Amino acid sequence: MKMQIGAFLARRLAESGVRHIFGVPGDFNLPLLEQIEAHPLLEFTGNCNELNAAYAADGYARTAGISALVTTYGVGDLSAINGIAGAYAENVPVVHITGAPPLHAMNSRALLHHTLADGAYGNVNRCMAEFTVAQARITPANALFEIDRVLNECWLERRPVHLQIPSDVTHLLIDTPKKALVLSEFCSDPEQLEYARKKIVDLLRSATSTTLLIDAEVGRFGVADLVFRLAEKWGIPYAVLGPAKAILPETSSLFSGIYVGAASSPGTRALVEEADCLVGIGLRFTDTSSGLFSQHIDIERLIHLRRHDLDIGREPVPGVALREILRGILDAFTPGGQRQSHANASGVVPVDNHPDATDEHLTQTALWARVQCFLKPGDIVIGEAGTSHSGLSEIRFPSGADYIAQPIWGSIGYSLPALLGSMLAAPSRRHVLFIGDGSFQLTAQELSTILRCDLRPIIFLINNDGYTIERLILGKNSRYNDVNAWRYSELPYVLDQYNRSISHVVSTCLELEDVLQHLSCIDKLLFIEVRLARMDAPEALKSFSANFAEFDYGRRGPRDE
Amino acid sequence: MKMQIGAFLARRLAESGVRHIFGVPGDFNLPLLEQIEAHPLLEFTGNCNELNAAYAADGYARTAGISALVTTYGVGDLSAINGIAGAYAENVPVVHITGAPPLHAMNSRALLHHTLADGAYGNVNRCMAEFTVAQARITPANALFEIDRVLNECWLERRPVHLQIPSDVTHLLIDTPKKALVLSEFCSDPEQLEYARKKIVDLLRSATSTTLLIDAEVGRFGVADLVFRLAEKWGIPYAVLGPAKAILPETSSLFSGIYVGAASSPGTRALVEEADCLVGIGLRFTDTSSGLFSQHIDIERLIHLRRHDLDIGREPVPGVALREILRGILDAFTPGGQRQSHANASGVVPVDNHPDATDEHLTQTALWARVQCFLKPGDIVIGEAGTSHSGLSEIRFPSGADYIAQPIWGSIGYSLPALLGSMLAAPSRRHVLFIGDGSFQLTAQELSTILRCDLRPIIFLINNDGYTIERLILGKNSRYNDVNAWRYSELPYVLDQYNRSISHVVSTCLELEDVLQHLSCIDKLLFIEVRLARMDAPEALKSFSANFAEFDYGRRGPRDE
Repeated sequence: MKMQIGAFLARRLAESGVRHIFGVPGDFNLPLLEQIEAHPLLEFTGNCNELNAAYAADGYARTAGISALVTTYGVGDLSAINGIAGAYAENVPVVHITGAPPLHAMNSRALLHHTLADGAYGNVNRCMAEFTVAQARITPANALFEIDRVLNECWLERRPVHLQIPSDVTHLLIDTPKKALVLSEFCSDPEQLEYARKKIVDLLRSATSTTLLIDAEVGRFGVADLVFRLAEKWGIPYAVLGPAKAILPETSSLFSGIYVGAASSPGTRALVEEADCLVGIGLRFTDTSSGLFSQHIDIERLIHLRRHDLDIGREPVPGVALREILRGILDAFTPGGQRQSHANASGVVPVDNHPDATDEHLTQTALWARVQCFLKPGDIVIGEAGTSHSGLSEIRFPSGADYIAQPIWGSIGYSLPALLGSMLAAPSRRHVLFIGDGSFQLTAQELSTILRCDLRPIIFLINNDGYTIERLILGKNSRYNDVNAWRYSELPYVLDQYNRSISHVVSTCLELEDVLQHLSCIDKLLFIEVRLARMDAPEALKSFSANFAEFDYGRRGPRDE
Repeated sequence: MKMQIGAFLARRLAESGVRHIFGVPGDFNLPLLEQIEAHPLLEFTGNCNELNAAYAADGYARTAGISALVTTYGVGDLSAINGIAGAYAENVPVVHITGAPPLHAMNSRALLHHTLADGAYGNVNRCMAEFTVAQARITPANALFEIDRVLNECWLERRPVHLQIPSDVTHLLIDTPKKALVLSEFCSDPEQLEYARKKIVDLLRSATSTTLLIDAEVGRFGVADLVFRLAEKWGIPYAVLGPAKAILPETSSLFSGIYVGAASSPGTRALVEEADCLVGIGLRFTDTSSGLFSQHIDIERLIHLRRHDLDIGREPVPGVALREILRGILDAFTPGGQRQSHANASGVVPVDNHPDATDEHLTQTALWARVQCFLKPGDIVIGEAGTSHSGLSEIRFPSGADYIAQPIWGSIGYSLPALLGSMLAAPSRRHVLFIGDGSFQLTAQELSTILRCDLRPIIFLINNDGYTIERLILGKNSRYNDVNAWRYSELPYVLDQYNRSISHVVSTCLELEDVLQHLSCIDKLLFIEVRLARMDAPEALKSFSANFAEFDYGRRGPRDE
């Protein structure tokens, strides 16, 4: 079947499950945008800038499974690259497509705009290659196999890929197969799988205490349900690393809290560190997720499952797919198998009734307690780096609520465009964003696109007058941690001419309560500016900050008085 | 003299002429920011995000000579990289400093936030190296010589450099010299210089007609005065390539217009292409500056001077500094030397009286005619890519007015943060920005920093309802070229709580006139939203667009009906 190359790419994206494509137009990508708009299943959503487009694509992929964005060569790619790197760090499958200069110009090393005007066309690609798992410059000769290869890699590793499509080849015809692209999962070597399954099941059966410890890979590789069923069937309590927040139900009696090394609650810590057998999934002990590398994990007692391989103690077993080994263990359960009892060790105090609202000034403590009651099953909650992520990490989520944050890469400003992306992926689910004023300023204009798409999230703008998370580490009163004071609550009105928002400013518990009581009658985007004291922060963040200054700056480095 | 490494870096920046440092705080750079704030000559200006910081640094360097910005590792660097690449393409000396993770963590390949959590610490550096002329990771052992080396390279090439300063070494002491850093220019090989000077002077003396053709390098390497004096003394008419707009006086009778290959005015074209001897300086014939490579330059008759070498016809002469050869030629003039007469061939029609204002809707033609009368000697005019840059290119600037644009790299959104930078470099000069609505949305929040610094530019927001420059190329009515309609004129009020701005919306010539007549009584930032028709554009842009579609998309590519 003869198809235009760009139309074929659009078709492959649609077959992969993409419905919304993000990006910014530029002369080199306009032909491809025409082909995207012509595809019946695809919709192009223009962003205010390319970094925001990358963040939006990241958010979309977290909720929909995979995503794509289109930028223009050089200026667009390099504006987006920080968002692409974030998707790499956080294991999010994003297809980054750039409308590149015409092939004839690249081949003749012409001096074009959007380049260094030195005839070089490899520099941008080399940058993108640092943060993507596959790359290709599409030509009429390679389009057929390169597009499929790159999309397959994206899905296999759940990580970004980069496709360059020169502006003069999009409309050329190539032979394409009728068969739809099916993004497939890796299949285990059967003998390795059986070897690992038997060995792990034996270990589980003989262990006197077992604990599951999961990281974000469980969510990204779509095995959360499987892991939960496994935990329930075998009666294994589970703890999570910070980046896996809310991937498994936090309402289950098996939920045993967030493990943060020495900073964990004593019960969580004991369950993880003293388990006779610890089953870890996709663990990455980073500075923030390990309480600055204070984890104590006995490798000899660890079974570590990863996307495509695993370790049993010190023995590596390659060629085993995460999903298959989990299913193998699940199916191996027999009523005679181990089913341990355990105490709830989550360290998270469930709050069933929210505190009485008063006219006292809101505090971080009061806010997050109230938020815990406010969240509903099925919500998608998005937490920006800083006090928002920290506060949300400390409360327990209702069942079926998902959490989106960027705990590894930690690029401030990520969450607002990510909200746009996730909401386009699941418009019927309630979305609630918590973002601080400092972070908000980085990407604030994307509020415009959220309004333009007539999406209706609830946005809590935590206004604490600057970069509180930095002030806690260093420069409590330093000017560099200040930001200009905006009239935040009026911004949604200014960024859209169609009055698709309602804003409130709250400073006290009563004012917050008043807004939250009247949510149901609002059919617009709701923007709530919450004014909090400058140095108020969740307790965990306060203690963590001093340790960070020690780790980052050493004994000779500066400290606040 | 023992000094802390970060304090030494701050001192070297101050000695280089830097006074304002841009950037965004992050945990890894806070110690350095403390040292910057402690330096009596340096002021840190926090930006809303890192790309804006890079653009601001670019604008600052264009007006002040050199600039610096500080970001945080990974997230900050990669957010800024597009602005750094632009500075490379456009020959702007920007020192990009990143607060990196502590050296101990990089050495031990620790899994930190702001990294891919894989222990790799080379990926960001490799990206930065693609778009900078020197790079270093500062350690206590190399700080003394690496800081000076990198700053010298920045100045020598007038291009960005990258310094990584780990967060745990900033406050360690090293021995430093008392002597201030002097950023020096390259000095010629004397014999080569004399050889070239004699040969060029002979050619100039024997030529029956000579024309000067300059590019942006004349401005960036600070030889504009020298070139102008040379042109005046020898009586040589000068034409400029687009990126050199306003570098030489446009009011002189020697000014012969902008050369754009076949798209030049006939007079300009003849002067350049038919000169017996053409002296070019730093010429880069890019797609946009050459009318899609339609220049006709006879290499045999070209003397091509560049920053550090030159060609006489086909003979390369390395080791000759631009400033020295210019001075040599200037000094060689004798009254008996050639002094040619010539007609004004600029093709730009000087308008001395502005057209009578009417209540008709404003057009691009009327707007730019009016702007030409509005500009004053000494203004710094900033033109965003699109109709603004195109319109400004077609009018003649008053003497001493400077022009800032990004014609090679062409990253939309550049001009607003660049305005911030340039204005901090020269706060007493009137700054006038022209920016379209589409571009404005990319970096709009930086208006906040301009207001926070209490700067008072005049900003013309050209609202033509989306990406007009793209619509002219492809997708006239396509949705991807739309942007959301903001209440632009209300944005300055919302992004600052101290009422440091005044806004107007104008749609007719009369309304514009009314605003411009009352400028003198305004001591605030003035924001003028100018409403123009969607498909209205300067004539040059219209004709150029069709040619671009041809070049970019080829014969099989799409075209609008």
